[in-house]
Amino acid sequence: MSQPLYVIKIGGNVIDNPEACSRFLRSFAHIKGPKILVHGGGKIATQIAARLQIETRMVEGRRITDKPMLDVVTMVYGGLVNKNLVAQLQALGCNAIGLTGADGGIIRSVRRPVKTIDYGFVGDIEAVNGEQIHAILGSSLIPVIAPLTYSTSGDLLNTNADTMASVTGVAMSEFYEVNLIYCFEKKGVLSDPDDDTAVIAALNLDSYHFYKSTGVINKGMIPKLDNAFDALQAGISKVMICHADDLIEAIDSEAGTAITL
Amino acid sequence: MSQPLYVIKIGGNVIDNPEACSRFLRSFAHIKGPKILVHGGGKIATQIAARLQIETRMVEGRRITDKPMLDVVTMVYGGLVNKNLVAQLQALGCNAIGLTGADGGIIRSVRRPVKTIDYGFVGDIEAVNGEQIHAILGSSLIPVIAPLTYSTSGDLLNTNADTMASVTGVAMSEFYEVNLIYCFEKKGVLSDPDDDTAVIAALNLDSYHFYKSTGVINKGMIPKLDNAFDALQAGISKVMICHADDLIEAIDSEAGTAITL
Repeated sequence: MSQPLYVIKIGGNVIDNPEACSRFLRSFAHIKGPKILVHGGGKIATQIAARLQIETRMVEGRRITDKPMLDVVTMVYGGLVNKNLVAQLQALGCNAIGLTGADGGIIRSVRRPVKTIDYGFVGDIEAVNGEQIHAILGSSLIPVIAPLTYSTSGDLLNTNADTMASVTGVAMSEFYEVNLIYCFEKKGVLSDPDDDTAVIAALNLDSYHFYKSTGVINKGMIPKLDNAFDALQAGISKVMICHADDLIEAIDSEAGTAITL
Repeated sequence: MSQPLYVIKIGGNVIDNPEACSRFLRSFAHIKGPKILVHGGGKIATQIAARLQIETRMVEGRRITDKPMLDVVTMVYGGLVNKNLVAQLQALGCNAIGLTGADGGIIRSVRRPVKTIDYGFVGDIEAVNGEQIHAILGSSLIPVIAPLTYSTSGDLLNTNADTMASVTGVAMSEFYEVNLIYCFEKKGVLSDPDDDTAVIAALNLDSYHFYKSTGVINKGMIPKLDNAFDALQAGISKVMICHADDLIEAIDSEAGTAITL
């Protein structure tokens, strides 16, 4: 059995709340062994854009990223958010290193082709350099990855953080037993969307199909879980979905939803 | 004789000019072997601050960095400038990795104590983790360092890029034969300030004292050269001062001013 690696995605709602973020970082710093943090953007980019009089346009929850907005997300995700996370982790004794996909060429993408919507400078991931990430982890560094990638033509590209976490986890499964953990604002996958305590502790393909067929697992959760099973089929050992406050408990299988094949 | 390492500082005036910057990056990418780029900030931080209605205050050429201004320089230096340099270098086949002093804990500082002026979140460098930078270089990565450091309390601190280049060079002289190159808008140290072609090709302590005593080397150049000789005395093999367009020629000793003890 190879060494475990935790790839942890933290959403924008935690980034936006300094106290919640600080609690999360203490938990993250507490995890032993190799680990990777992938962070979302949060609302700060939208706020900074508004102050710079740059209009934010969203289509189906995705940000349209023209050149002025690309500069904003590069500043906010790659600079303000990423470097503050790194400095806070360093103060907690965690040897963090802030990266975008461009740094070390770790995650390369192509600009999304225009079909009906022009998303602008948005990247669809093409390649993850697992060897390079492995070498960085081998230098006892803890990657903190911002949701930006790059193209071979030298452009930065705004990229979905959930996808970055999952493709990074898959690439690292060549070297480690990868646990991919999505931290969000709910305690896990719920059997009753109105009851925050009704957490399904474990899901596999069989029970997932059963919960779907009986309508227990609701529509919004289905693409997230389909992605989780795709990641498992591509080599990740376990996917966990938990509240950001429950990270340590989720790793100890005492909170959240554990998803396996 | 240990392996050569080039530590190259590029000033804000080159960063501010896309064509000059692109020419410089092509030269930088062309240099064989281990190398480190340290970049200044340029005028973009001042422009972004103005658009965010944050006042820029300078005292003796140094930026007063209150919390809103710290956020601006973190966004601009650590995000916009740094990540665009990295993405452009990657497109040139140079495996760049963008870092602040916080990343990997490579350069730690203390917040400058308030005497007559409160500079705010400005760092005076305390420690350089040469082992960590050596490990990063050992992974075939090319560090691109933004002028930000961090304190043990988890704050980011605005830090002078010239100083960061020089302390990094000194720390790396334990592992390499370090050449520290300052690229700026003049062709080197001039024997006649009104004649841009009157470059002094070589300076050592003796000739420096001679040029100073005869008044040939002008006042503004003295602190820069004093720092260069300090760096040489602390272990750096050679300091070069050249125009950003002449980087390759300077390395081949065909341009700029070469400074040795």
